Amino acid sequence: METQFLKWLLPQLNKDHRLEVLPGDDAAVLRFPGGKRTVVTTDLLTESVDFRFSKSSADNDFPPPASAHQVGRKAVAVSLSDLAAMAATPEAIVVSVALPQNGGRRLAEELFKGIQEEVNTFDITLAGGDTNAWDGPLVISVTAIGSILPRQCWRRDTAQAGDFLIVTGPLGGSLLGRHLNVTPRCREATAIASRYPVHAALDISDGLAIDCGRMLTASHVGGTIELDLVPIHPDAISLSEVPHTNQITPLEHAMQDGEDFELLLAMPAEAAQALVQDDPSSLVAKTTMQPRIIGKVTESLDFCSTTPDGQTKRLEPKGFEHVFQ
Amino acid sequence: METQFLKWLLPQLNKDHRLEVLPGDDAAVLRFPGGKRTVVTTDLLTESVDFRFSKSSADNDFPPPASAHQVGRKAVAVSLSDLAAMAATPEAIVVSVALPQNGGRRLAEELFKGIQEEVNTFDITLAGGDTNAWDGPLVISVTAIGSILPRQCWRRDTAQAGDFLIVTGPLGGSLLGRHLNVTPRCREATAIASRYPVHAALDISDGLAIDCGRMLTASHVGGTIELDLVPIHPDAISLSEVPHTNQITPLEHAMQDGEDFELLLAMPAEAAQALVQDDPSSLVAKTTMQPRIIGKVTESLDFCSTTPDGQTKRLEPKGFEHVFQ
Repeated sequence: METQFLKWLLPQLNKDHRLEVLPGDDAAVLRFPGGKRTVVTTDLLTESVDFRFSKSSADNDFPPPASAHQVGRKAVAVSLSDLAAMAATPEAIVVSVALPQNGGRRLAEELFKGIQEEVNTFDITLAGGDTNAWDGPLVISVTAIGSILPRQCWRRDTAQAGDFLIVTGPLGGSLLGRHLNVTPRCREATAIASRYPVHAALDISDGLAIDCGRMLTASHVGGTIELDLVPIHPDAISLSEVPHTNQITPLEHAMQDGEDFELLLAMPAEAAQALVQDDPSSLVAKTTMQPRIIGKVTESLDFCSTTPDGQTKRLEPKGFEHVFQ
Repeated sequence: METQFLKWLLPQLNKDHRLEVLPGDDAAVLRFPGGKRTVVTTDLLTESVDFRFSKSSADNDFPPPASAHQVGRKAVAVSLSDLAAMAATPEAIVVSVALPQNGGRRLAEELFKGIQEEVNTFDITLAGGDTNAWDGPLVISVTAIGSILPRQCWRRDTAQAGDFLIVTGPLGGSLLGRHLNVTPRCREATAIASRYPVHAALDISDGLAIDCGRMLTASHVGGTIELDLVPIHPDAISLSEVPHTNQITPLEHAMQDGEDFELLLAMPAEAAQALVQDDPSSLVAKTTMQPRIIGKVTESLDFCSTTPDGQTKRLEPKGFEHVFQ
């Protein structure tokens, strides 16, 4: 706990009707609407793996360097994305950081501004945190807390054979910069949950193929992705043309790239068809969501892709994974 | 998220009636007893600042090196200590870690065993986490979630002039090893809260002088600590005799050393006297708690120490603080 920083920080925190005890005490006490469940998730980002700061103004490497403000926003956004994947309403976050001793104060302030922007956008409360100094690079961990009515939350392990698979937007190429400007689908998730039956859901953080594989495996089912239905983000096309990356196709980027943070939903066929025909902005004002059916869940445990000419291939669930030995 | 590690981890997690959705999904859903508040706190520990691992068997430096098991336990314990300081009942934790790429798997397992030991001791649930690999040293962040009845929690900013100040055990010298074997006063806190009025509380993590100063400042009051009443831990005496540390007295260790994790309470005089005369084990079976009155809260804003011969001095709130620029 760094007193000078806290003195700067605390007066800036919103008063919030959900906080019975404000940040600055040992813990925050949260007042939730009666009868709701508490939903909690945590994510940690490290400099060099999840983002890097520019060392000079001439730095124009790929992927683009992040500002501390972007890192603050993103650290919150990825945790909120997990709440979206549960259809939970975000309520609060707590944030812990390890800051480099030199320049840490300024970094902390910029981080906080990014965090605060996200807090305001999603009408949540920053309920606490822990600020540490050390001689290493920046590490930031955000725990997000949401609420949901009993038995209303989406799970990843309850997809059913016959369900249609939906993604909420185009995929691939996020490393060109979208990975630093994540919009968690919190409002979209709660709006969809209030109107449509959803059997299973997760957020695509490590890549469509790997994350879809996780949902199907957890649900003890298989599935087929129709490759011509997978919505490809323009960034995936641009990235496939950048010469210094692995030369893979835009479709491969859409299937494998992480950090899209769109939702993958498994829904009964009729509900899925209704959702994609619905006007997204009638669900959530000004949403950028574009739900698309990309395949279906099967009783057979195989996880395959199909092409319009009828070719079927087993899918290798490629994507990002942390590796340690 | 490291799949191999998760496969090893998930089957070991307790089933728990509070978990509507188990770890392994995007977030955990917690079922709390109706009408209670959710209490949340987060702490982050970094290698080199909060602990260090032994690099060789001949390593006998001071402070003693930690095992990963001890780090896991401690990371949980310090967050639970924050819940104790609120008189909240611990319910759940989420844990995020950044692990070195080499040896990270083994480290993660040992960490987890330490975490699990603490989870079992305090009958809480490990509700989720995030496991990351990077090329830096170990960082671990624990968010603890507790419950409490509305308006029952202890705060740090409500000490009242006339209150007696109590510590729950002897202080100082924790760096000799107790800092790696922290016992959060959770059971003691809820037991005291159920039987005695407590006006303010916090856990002594950065040192009695600095933490007491924080309570008094937050409460807009002053206070006096009677130096001959401060219970001095035998470790404070031992540490004062170790030649290669700053040569300070046992009392100075008791006043300044961090990481004791005893509670500091501000209580009405009569209640304080009853608590210290009570048998601690009638409150909590097998507790090591030894509550002692060490001073009182004053209307004057000064924060002073007194000696039996009547000398009064202004107290400098010395103790541990993270510093970054």
